Amino acid sequence: MEQYEHGGNIYMYDKKIIDFSSNINPLGMPECAKDAIDITSLSKYPDINYVGLKRAISEYTGCGINNIIVGNGAAELIHLFVRAFSIKRPVIPSPAFSEYERAAVLSGGEPILYKIEEKNGFRIDIERLIDMLNDSDAVILGNPNNPTGQALNTNKIKELIFKAYKLNIPVMIDEAFIEFIKDFHQYESLPFLDDFDNLFIVRAATKFFGMPGIRLGYGLGSKKIIDNLDKHKEPWTVNAFADIIGRAIFNDKEFIERSRQYVNEEIKYMLNELKKNRNLHVYDTMVNFILVKLKKGTVHELKEKLLNRGILIRDASNFRYLDEKYFRVAVKKHEDNLKLIKALEETICL
Amino acid sequence: MEQYEHGGNIYMYDKKIIDFSSNINPLGMPECAKDAIDITSLSKYPDINYVGLKRAISEYTGCGINNIIVGNGAAELIHLFVRAFSIKRPVIPSPAFSEYERAAVLSGGEPILYKIEEKNGFRIDIERLIDMLNDSDAVILGNPNNPTGQALNTNKIKELIFKAYKLNIPVMIDEAFIEFIKDFHQYESLPFLDDFDNLFIVRAATKFFGMPGIRLGYGLGSKKIIDNLDKHKEPWTVNAFADIIGRAIFNDKEFIERSRQYVNEEIKYMLNELKKNRNLHVYDTMVNFILVKLKKGTVHELKEKLLNRGILIRDASNFRYLDEKYFRVAVKKHEDNLKLIKALEETICL
Repeated sequence: MEQYEHGGNIYMYDKKIIDFSSNINPLGMPECAKDAIDITSLSKYPDINYVGLKRAISEYTGCGINNIIVGNGAAELIHLFVRAFSIKRPVIPSPAFSEYERAAVLSGGEPILYKIEEKNGFRIDIERLIDMLNDSDAVILGNPNNPTGQALNTNKIKELIFKAYKLNIPVMIDEAFIEFIKDFHQYESLPFLDDFDNLFIVRAATKFFGMPGIRLGYGLGSKKIIDNLDKHKEPWTVNAFADIIGRAIFNDKEFIERSRQYVNEEIKYMLNELKKNRNLHVYDTMVNFILVKLKKGTVHELKEKLLNRGILIRDASNFRYLDEKYFRVAVKKHEDNLKLIKALEETICL
Repeated sequence: MEQYEHGGNIYMYDKKIIDFSSNINPLGMPECAKDAIDITSLSKYPDINYVGLKRAISEYTGCGINNIIVGNGAAELIHLFVRAFSIKRPVIPSPAFSEYERAAVLSGGEPILYKIEEKNGFRIDIERLIDMLNDSDAVILGNPNNPTGQALNTNKIKELIFKAYKLNIPVMIDEAFIEFIKDFHQYESLPFLDDFDNLFIVRAATKFFGMPGIRLGYGLGSKKIIDNLDKHKEPWTVNAFADIIGRAIFNDKEFIERSRQYVNEEIKYMLNELKKNRNLHVYDTMVNFILVKLKKGTVHELKEKLLNRGILIRDASNFRYLDEKYFRVAVKKHEDNLKLIKALEETICL
């Protein structure tokens, strides 16, 4: 199971820590989420069709109600996609969110792993990826990808979807982090929904809206895709609070813009500062987390040292193709980021 | 899809209605649930191991932490059980909660339906059920069963589990309604967990704790069963609010006793009153809902008439082996039950 362990597990630690392992919005959740809570909603089943929630997502994304499915975080939709389309041999650019691979394995499949090369700053070579589609029955791609922080732009995404379309295989693109990208419109796959009925986009409130606790994800696709997913979906997986809060947050344009701006300023600052540390190899990123490689020592040792200073980082050694040299840190509030930078200087450079 | 439609879908109706279609605790949720809510919990991932929640369930049920799994309502655990054990030919006493059959079909299985006979007041013949196990690879049983309202007692349950144990097939018993039974200890399968490692019990906060919106279910079984389910489980399916509220409610003994007493008094009253209606055949029940058969007319007509009076009943015609004569009503608050009885008298007897 260790292979599939996730970040954000602060429950293993007794004392108060600054959690850099969980890559969510440093500004937390929008205020409107708090106002939306209505305790009485618990005494009813959620609307099994989640029409109100889908309407809010429709306004946010521009997709029609019939092109939307909601789920218990992105995780439910990833597993559902694999099951509904009986996917056995998906191409998965890796390292990646471990649930992609796990979903395929649990369904009796054998994922085809595309190794994202470090030498290229963990950027995907679209030609090589497309070549691998011939032997596969699906593509599962994080865009931007976790933990590498890189994204394919819309031109490359289009090439990928088009090739898969010709081969008649479905493409799932996990855009859980896309709103963090400065010029995210240049990386979205939303424009292709109308033309390609093999495309399924997964998103979530988890990361950008700072609410991993709420468990609210959504998927966008052609009616054909969504109908098939609905046929296999378990009922009421989004709870009443997630339903109500979801109807409020996507409309909070001020929060959305402020978050994107804050994260991009901080990431620029952090990249710059961390790169000064001669013991670290710091990879570029487009989003709210940074993948880092130690030049000497192991992450296990570093993690222990930082924990003693009240800082939790994500040991990235259990990601496919990474090893005990790699860790991931999220962008937090500026004052916390300063603490991390200082702690890394003092811990590693000695 | 119509075959699998559920009750409780009040979202189809604009005006305020009294919902007899959704069979949840008429007293609503315990007060302590409201006090437990903590908005800040949303900004963290729930504990992926849900240790605090499992501890509360452990105290409530007497099961060890390692014998507990939590889920997004009972529904997630039903589907998970079918997948984790690759169940293809489960015996399902029917009519029953449609997700049992749906889970098996979605996993490519062909359920073996045991028809619960009306002539016996919809009580299960344990000998006949046990005979069917020879051709099956699992049992999925609602106990008490929905929509029939009947339960097998512990002696009969033991016979069933023992036979399945000898055949080496797993048994899932859905006890979502068991706390409503007056002398529920005589129907529980909990005592058999220690002796039979093929037993999996599913329960939920949904019905008895009056919180279908929270989506909190749990399962009890041997370590072998729970480990296999954990291996197949999607992460974080119980959201932060469900986690927190779940830690509070099971300890509320006053609410638990008061609910059981209220429901049993009301059910006695309702059965008595409804049986006076010469146009209805009213089946006995042990729990908080009643299955009823019309002697003339169809439920479709009746439902429309009652909706005009602001009352929603559960058309039970899409349950396996039932037809357009059957409907189900939940026990509500006394004043609401009076309205239903009166409305049924005036609508049907004319």
